[in-house]
Amino acid sequence: MTNLQTEDFSKWYLQTIQKADLMAYSPVRGCIIFKPDGYELWEHIQEEFNKFLRSEGIRNAYFPMLIPQNFFQKEEDHIEGFAPELPWVTEVGSEKLEEPLALRPTSETMIGSAFSEWINSYRDLPYEINQWANVFRWEKKTLPFLRTSEFLWQEGHTAHENEEEARVRTEKVLEAYADLIENFLAIPVYRGQKTPSERFAGAVDTYSVEAMMKDGKAVQAGTSHYMGTKFAEAFDIRYLNRENKHVYAHTTSWGISTRLIGSLIMVHGDEQGLVFPPKIAPTQIVLIPVGPWKKNPAILEKLTALKTDLVDKGYRVRIDDTDNSVGFKFNEWELKGAAIRVECGPRDLENEQAMVKVRDLDEKVAVPFNELEHHLDRELTAMQTRLLENARLRNKENEHYDIETLDELKAHIEASKQANKTPGFVLIGWDGSEETEKQIKEETGFTTRNIPFEVPVEKTVDLVSGKPAKHTVWIARAY
Amino acid sequence: MTNLQTEDFSKWYLQTIQKADLMAYSPVRGCIIFKPDGYELWEHIQEEFNKFLRSEGIRNAYFPMLIPQNFFQKEEDHIEGFAPELPWVTEVGSEKLEEPLALRPTSETMIGSAFSEWINSYRDLPYEINQWANVFRWEKKTLPFLRTSEFLWQEGHTAHENEEEARVRTEKVLEAYADLIENFLAIPVYRGQKTPSERFAGAVDTYSVEAMMKDGKAVQAGTSHYMGTKFAEAFDIRYLNRENKHVYAHTTSWGISTRLIGSLIMVHGDEQGLVFPPKIAPTQIVLIPVGPWKKNPAILEKLTALKTDLVDKGYRVRIDDTDNSVGFKFNEWELKGAAIRVECGPRDLENEQAMVKVRDLDEKVAVPFNELEHHLDRELTAMQTRLLENARLRNKENEHYDIETLDELKAHIEASKQANKTPGFVLIGWDGSEETEKQIKEETGFTTRNIPFEVPVEKTVDLVSGKPAKHTVWIARAY
Repeated sequence: MTNLQTEDFSKWYLQTIQKADLMAYSPVRGCIIFKPDGYELWEHIQEEFNKFLRSEGIRNAYFPMLIPQNFFQKEEDHIEGFAPELPWVTEVGSEKLEEPLALRPTSETMIGSAFSEWINSYRDLPYEINQWANVFRWEKKTLPFLRTSEFLWQEGHTAHENEEEARVRTEKVLEAYADLIENFLAIPVYRGQKTPSERFAGAVDTYSVEAMMKDGKAVQAGTSHYMGTKFAEAFDIRYLNRENKHVYAHTTSWGISTRLIGSLIMVHGDEQGLVFPPKIAPTQIVLIPVGPWKKNPAILEKLTALKTDLVDKGYRVRIDDTDNSVGFKFNEWELKGAAIRVECGPRDLENEQAMVKVRDLDEKVAVPFNELEHHLDRELTAMQTRLLENARLRNKENEHYDIETLDELKAHIEASKQANKTPGFVLIGWDGSEETEKQIKEETGFTTRNIPFEVPVEKTVDLVSGKPAKHTVWIARAY
Repeated sequence: MTNLQTEDFSKWYLQTIQKADLMAYSPVRGCIIFKPDGYELWEHIQEEFNKFLRSEGIRNAYFPMLIPQNFFQKEEDHIEGFAPELPWVTEVGSEKLEEPLALRPTSETMIGSAFSEWINSYRDLPYEINQWANVFRWEKKTLPFLRTSEFLWQEGHTAHENEEEARVRTEKVLEAYADLIENFLAIPVYRGQKTPSERFAGAVDTYSVEAMMKDGKAVQAGTSHYMGTKFAEAFDIRYLNRENKHVYAHTTSWGISTRLIGSLIMVHGDEQGLVFPPKIAPTQIVLIPVGPWKKNPAILEKLTALKTDLVDKGYRVRIDDTDNSVGFKFNEWELKGAAIRVECGPRDLENEQAMVKVRDLDEKVAVPFNELEHHLDRELTAMQTRLLENARLRNKENEHYDIETLDELKAHIEASKQANKTPGFVLIGWDGSEETEKQIKEETGFTTRNIPFEVPVEKTVDLVSGKPAKHTVWIARAY
């Protein structure tokens, strides 16, 4: 039997997200439709991250989507980075606009302009705000969820009195992203700093959490930027400081997006379809009557009562009482990533038990009715932990620490290919030059992911130049 | 003392929403910034309406914002209605697009095209979906919250087997809007059917809930449309029915928007600022230490403990321990519409009590600490009911049933003006002709609001033509 996930990961991904009804293509280039199961994943991420924001006193706001052309011209690096991808509104009705308006790719400029009006004194600082919004980046190659022309995200923007406070915010948010992604999405992340060439357009420093997909490729799962006073200077965000002087604020911005949905699927999915960590699964428990259940109404009654109890306890539960065959239903709910399946037929009812199947385990176990809720609760908790642990173990297998030269890297990639394995993440020494990054990218397709905060193995020599390494860096192929 | 709200309602509105920090103007024509207190109102409306959607099994999804030009050409009335207000993306980067893309003013076309692919059999019906999104209508005259070039809304779209089921959905949603607006926002509404000239572009029937502002003008607060098979024909939404024939589905759509925020302010606000029904107030309870509280740390400790208790019970509570004067704080929180203010100073602490002031009541009462939580709970509930009742009473005063001719209407308007009163809502007889509507609008600025489901007084003669009335209709000036 062929294993599509191993044979052709990208085909498996595209088939699975469509068969499982997470998305549909749209008539607009690179824009997808988030169908209810796909969108619900985003809603859960929103709820969860809003908890962090509330705990920090960072409130949500909403800024206009259209950005005047002259705003982009105020920060040189920013416009350079985004210009080729910007869609422009040039007409309304049949009238030409005097100044074209861009569809926001991010809102530093719009929010910077607002901050300059709202922030006057050190008493106004820190000024911290978040926005959930749609953004647009017309990229050449698109991939559902991971790279779409329109996507959904949150973007936080803050202004501070000094560098230290701004850096604390940048770091704290990065840690909140790591916490969300590891403990809610069950995806282990690599925390670190981006190299200058991979920084956000206009940032002084960019930090990221990177995730490894099942095929060994990387996804930049969240980024947090320290802007220094660059945007403050461009948009005149000045305030009267404690010494009664007008000085520039230090700003930050940070974001996570619907890319996380793609990562979720690529990290946990299997040959049968989607696998979701219970905390985010749109269907945590599916109840399926089996055997000649239609002749025995007590079965559906039992499951309905069980559903009510479980829903009251806060679980997301569905009953599948359609006319489809039991086999079809089992496949369907495995495909859709229901975390646990509970079956009940006439004999089960007689024995006062149900059969319980956890999505990522092989065995099916009989559980007495009076232990069922407790059992489900325990299994959901265990599954959440297990998915994270499994991903950690897989990551470990695909991390490589002993590659010292570009030739060794090429040999490693070739050997991996021969063995039908992923080349994974490779930890290298880097002399800090852009030439090294460029050459690696051109010759292998690997890009620098980040300079880890905690270096697993210190590398002393640059992979390409052989010069002394300034940093130890993760490199990988990336989505 | 002048009363700005009575003297110049529009000036009062614009001043209040800015002073209370609900919004800010943006550099983009007609687009506003929803600041945190303004945006939070929308978040509460979302949470509340999502409960209805969940109870009906209607799930949220997200569709692309950009709509290809050819989509608009498929339904004649639809394009005619929206064409003048559509912003167009014509370029990306520096390249011209082959086909311009409109910024959605509403998504019937995009969702209709998706429905035609997703709906194949009667087994797929009803197909019911909702979207929370930003939409664009470049209207000539804009007003913060009530009419902005970009606004936020929810749009529900459903497809059904037959007219009856579609009409049931249309009506049920309208009733859900009425319930939300009356029982959550404390705004009484007028339920009814729009006249043909006021229908949604492309609808067979449009129903609305209308609200009366404090100045007597109307706001169309929510609409629900029965489309018949018009959009199904335009987008080929056909399905195999129970008789194995391919037939068109019957569709509906319905929406409420950030206009509701404007209505909320215009219905409940007073000279001191915002007044919010407790269920939606961003600050339900504000705790303010008074007297020489800084010398007596036990006061702030007491308030902090109280806050913790109240937050645990699910209330939205703030403590104002800034350096501002007490007088400033009282004004500030009245302006921002905190529903209840709790004060505690040294003597209160000694007497184990706090002073409680409800936003819309004059007296301030002493409440023993041990009765405080119960008292606050009761007062919040009472305030919610009272605001709705007060609005109902005011509406009654501004409803006019005895105006039989256009001359009488003009005289009524003139008399109201002389008395510095609003002409309010006027119930008239209507012969069903567009000419009547046109003449009333041209000569008085009044427009037909809706044909009420429950007619308070049956009118028998058309206001303008004197012909027998086909309908009894509410007319008013409207935002």
